[in-house]
Amino acid sequence: MSQAKKIAAIIGGGVIGGGWAARFLLNGWDVQVADPDPQAERKISEVLANARRSLPALYDVALPAEGRLSFVGSIAEAVQGAAWVQESVPERLDIKHKVLADITAAAEPGTIVASSTSGFKPSELQEGNAKAGQILVCHPFNPVYLLPLIEVVPSPATRTDIAEAASSILTSVGMKPLLVRKEIDAHIADRFLEAVWREGLWLIKDGIATTEEIDDAIIYGFGLRWAQMGLFDTYRVAGGEAGMRHFISQFGPALAWPWTKLMDVPDLTDELIDTIASQSDAQSAHMSIREMERIRDDNLVGMMRALRKNNWAAGQVIAAHEATIKPDFPTIKAEPLVLARRQIPQSWTDYNGHMNEAHYLELYSVGGDNLLQMIGSDEAYVAAGKSYFSVENHIIHAAETKQGDTVVIKGQVLEGQGKKLRVFYWIELEDGTLCATGEQMLIHVDLNTRRACNPDPEVMSNVRAIAEAHAGLPLPDGAGRGVGTKR
Amino acid sequence: MSQAKKIAAIIGGGVIGGGWAARFLLNGWDVQVADPDPQAERKISEVLANARRSLPALYDVALPAEGRLSFVGSIAEAVQGAAWVQESVPERLDIKHKVLADITAAAEPGTIVASSTSGFKPSELQEGNAKAGQILVCHPFNPVYLLPLIEVVPSPATRTDIAEAASSILTSVGMKPLLVRKEIDAHIADRFLEAVWREGLWLIKDGIATTEEIDDAIIYGFGLRWAQMGLFDTYRVAGGEAGMRHFISQFGPALAWPWTKLMDVPDLTDELIDTIASQSDAQSAHMSIREMERIRDDNLVGMMRALRKNNWAAGQVIAAHEATIKPDFPTIKAEPLVLARRQIPQSWTDYNGHMNEAHYLELYSVGGDNLLQMIGSDEAYVAAGKSYFSVENHIIHAAETKQGDTVVIKGQVLEGQGKKLRVFYWIELEDGTLCATGEQMLIHVDLNTRRACNPDPEVMSNVRAIAEAHAGLPLPDGAGRGVGTKR
Repeated sequence: MSQAKKIAAIIGGGVIGGGWAARFLLNGWDVQVADPDPQAERKISEVLANARRSLPALYDVALPAEGRLSFVGSIAEAVQGAAWVQESVPERLDIKHKVLADITAAAEPGTIVASSTSGFKPSELQEGNAKAGQILVCHPFNPVYLLPLIEVVPSPATRTDIAEAASSILTSVGMKPLLVRKEIDAHIADRFLEAVWREGLWLIKDGIATTEEIDDAIIYGFGLRWAQMGLFDTYRVAGGEAGMRHFISQFGPALAWPWTKLMDVPDLTDELIDTIASQSDAQSAHMSIREMERIRDDNLVGMMRALRKNNWAAGQVIAAHEATIKPDFPTIKAEPLVLARRQIPQSWTDYNGHMNEAHYLELYSVGGDNLLQMIGSDEAYVAAGKSYFSVENHIIHAAETKQGDTVVIKGQVLEGQGKKLRVFYWIELEDGTLCATGEQMLIHVDLNTRRACNPDPEVMSNVRAIAEAHAGLPLPDGAGRGVGTKR
Repeated sequence: MSQAKKIAAIIGGGVIGGGWAARFLLNGWDVQVADPDPQAERKISEVLANARRSLPALYDVALPAEGRLSFVGSIAEAVQGAAWVQESVPERLDIKHKVLADITAAAEPGTIVASSTSGFKPSELQEGNAKAGQILVCHPFNPVYLLPLIEVVPSPATRTDIAEAASSILTSVGMKPLLVRKEIDAHIADRFLEAVWREGLWLIKDGIATTEEIDDAIIYGFGLRWAQMGLFDTYRVAGGEAGMRHFISQFGPALAWPWTKLMDVPDLTDELIDTIASQSDAQSAHMSIREMERIRDDNLVGMMRALRKNNWAAGQVIAAHEATIKPDFPTIKAEPLVLARRQIPQSWTDYNGHMNEAHYLELYSVGGDNLLQMIGSDEAYVAAGKSYFSVENHIIHAAETKQGDTVVIKGQVLEGQGKKLRVFYWIELEDGTLCATGEQMLIHVDLNTRRACNPDPEVMSNVRAIAEAHAGLPLPDGAGRGVGTKR
């Protein structure tokens, strides 16, 4: 790997070439693009705009300074000085042969010449090329700037040093190289996609299901599973303590059943069962089934909570369900309001084995949102252009909170006049143990000017009603205090 | 739907029956289990333990009070008073017939009698049953308490009111009913699973890939995609502005290629292409392709960040990559330390169109973790039984922060002696604009006793070095202040 250079040549723009360009640029590589399409620059810049808003968001540190992007007039210019050349031209073998010949003619001997093809095997691409040893397939998945999988497929004629350097560079730009040890039509992943696609065509043709119903069958079920454990780890967990060998061997008879149009099946011989069971052991026997179940569940919960943020797919189901079980607003009287009650998810805990500090604020912020709903600063109010912004927060931690604890959030309005709303929160376990207190100053704002202003009369009068009911309550312990002040 | 009763009968325990029991119980239903297996109670309680730690974690409100679980000696007793009966006995038609006969003999006329079967069509289950109209298939996906998908398959003999009530009840317990309009072997989702499984068997048998390589091909690529958009929405986005019809019609020739062992394929006629394109329009034409790309990317980032929390699958790739690009520790001198730099992800923004308040604490908490690494309170130190806990936090918000902004976190040690570590943070945009300040009191603790204690000598001397370097710096604006205090 030519570390010093860090130049990648992108031959063929479009969505795939653009995704490659973005992946390299955002990891600090310079990128030289050659594409005869006059729209190439526009297309790549659109992909790049998407990549800039999402790839860096995966990391808790800034990515390296972005590399330099240039568009050049020829393949030879693009390949100049490049440690990596990525070919993503149309899927026609004659075009690929011509382009690869131009690339290898211009490339240095150590340059990796990778093709994005899904349709051709590397040996097919190498036919007639004088420098075939530099060529291999590196098949990505759209969006290339986000999805980690990359199938690295050398042929027997590909140089070993080229294949090894390819995996190392791909890892260095955040990808997950999967070495395909024997070349095969469509490599590995696309064979599965093709099988699903063909089965899907039958279901649509036979009027069994629509595209939307098929997509629903995927996103609400096995898609979620497969984002975190594959086919075999999923079956391993399903098989439970009885073991993979036992579970798989039950499937023999079903292979003869018309459960798919794919009826050309191998016999599930003892030998094949043994192969599967021992490969599965090598893959996952370091974890118990119970451990895998919990990892699976934590992953599913985390992913579904992420989807929920976007009110999408499984996350939409959760949000809709939650709306039906949300408790009524509490009655306003001379005592703190019970604003929320919830269980602490695993994803909120940290390396100290307790809920991470940031989630205390998130917890009472949910309570605060419920308070805002109560006073009429709700979705419609926000849509009409006004809202409350938090301008100050103070948290005093009193006891640790662990995954699975159910906590209650109570709130007392300390100040509620004009644009100001100051609230004091208690986060308690159900037995009354105090975990933390929070003090929050909210300011009412106009969302167009982003400046402070008084709330609408109805909201103002709702705030006043709570503030008056709470006016006689004692000042909570910790209110108004600064960090490190003696208690 | 018999709202008043809310009793579910679970006939057949095991992983699937247990998952159903958990789904109903945690949604406030009473559950009556009949299973001749002497291990049934243990098996269900194990599933229930998993469900209790994960299902409530999906929601930001507490679920209803858990229902009552009872184990009874007969099917008739279990069915007593039940609005829902779920049959999950072994996949043999003679056993199913016998059990369903016992269920329908004891059930009230409005009771839904649902089977978890994947192997039989509802018309097969109904054969010879006097109350066939109450029977339908409701096929869940493991883990039943988390995955929303449920295939609802009536036969022509199933009563319409039963099928409708079934969907309504399933929705009320947080599931996503997918009505399968024409019964077919294996319903819909399992036909895809079966196709993938059969293709996988070939790859293993032919020595192309191991179980682990196949699972990697799934979890790092199309699994992530399919957790949030299915096959057809994914192709719609890939097709871009040229449209679904154009994109799909390109696939015709590939159907003749050996890209899977599934070689019995329908012709991709104009009629079939039109059907797919118009169904896809009905499904998603309310969004532009650009909009779908951004939704997709936000979903992928959110899910991968969730996986990262568990250092699992795609999340593990990100964490490993981040470790290679993490900047070095800053030099200690008489100025605030630059502790972190990062971009604001979309998932951190809220309905006000800016970063949600809780993430300010998360942001400087990451800075604080870097400071702890610097002073030697790192992974090894935590593993050896000591750490710092945050006991107090104060945030003053100064300016809004938006998705895509890159922020810099700086820190000044205000106090660093004995078990106390007090730090002041600035969160700034790259141009120096102040977004927020944070003040944090950390206390050094023994992780075994969970009580305060002095740090190890090396950590203590590292803290002292920074505290001394920062001793001459002016007290930052806002330090020591309480909420609502005049500036």
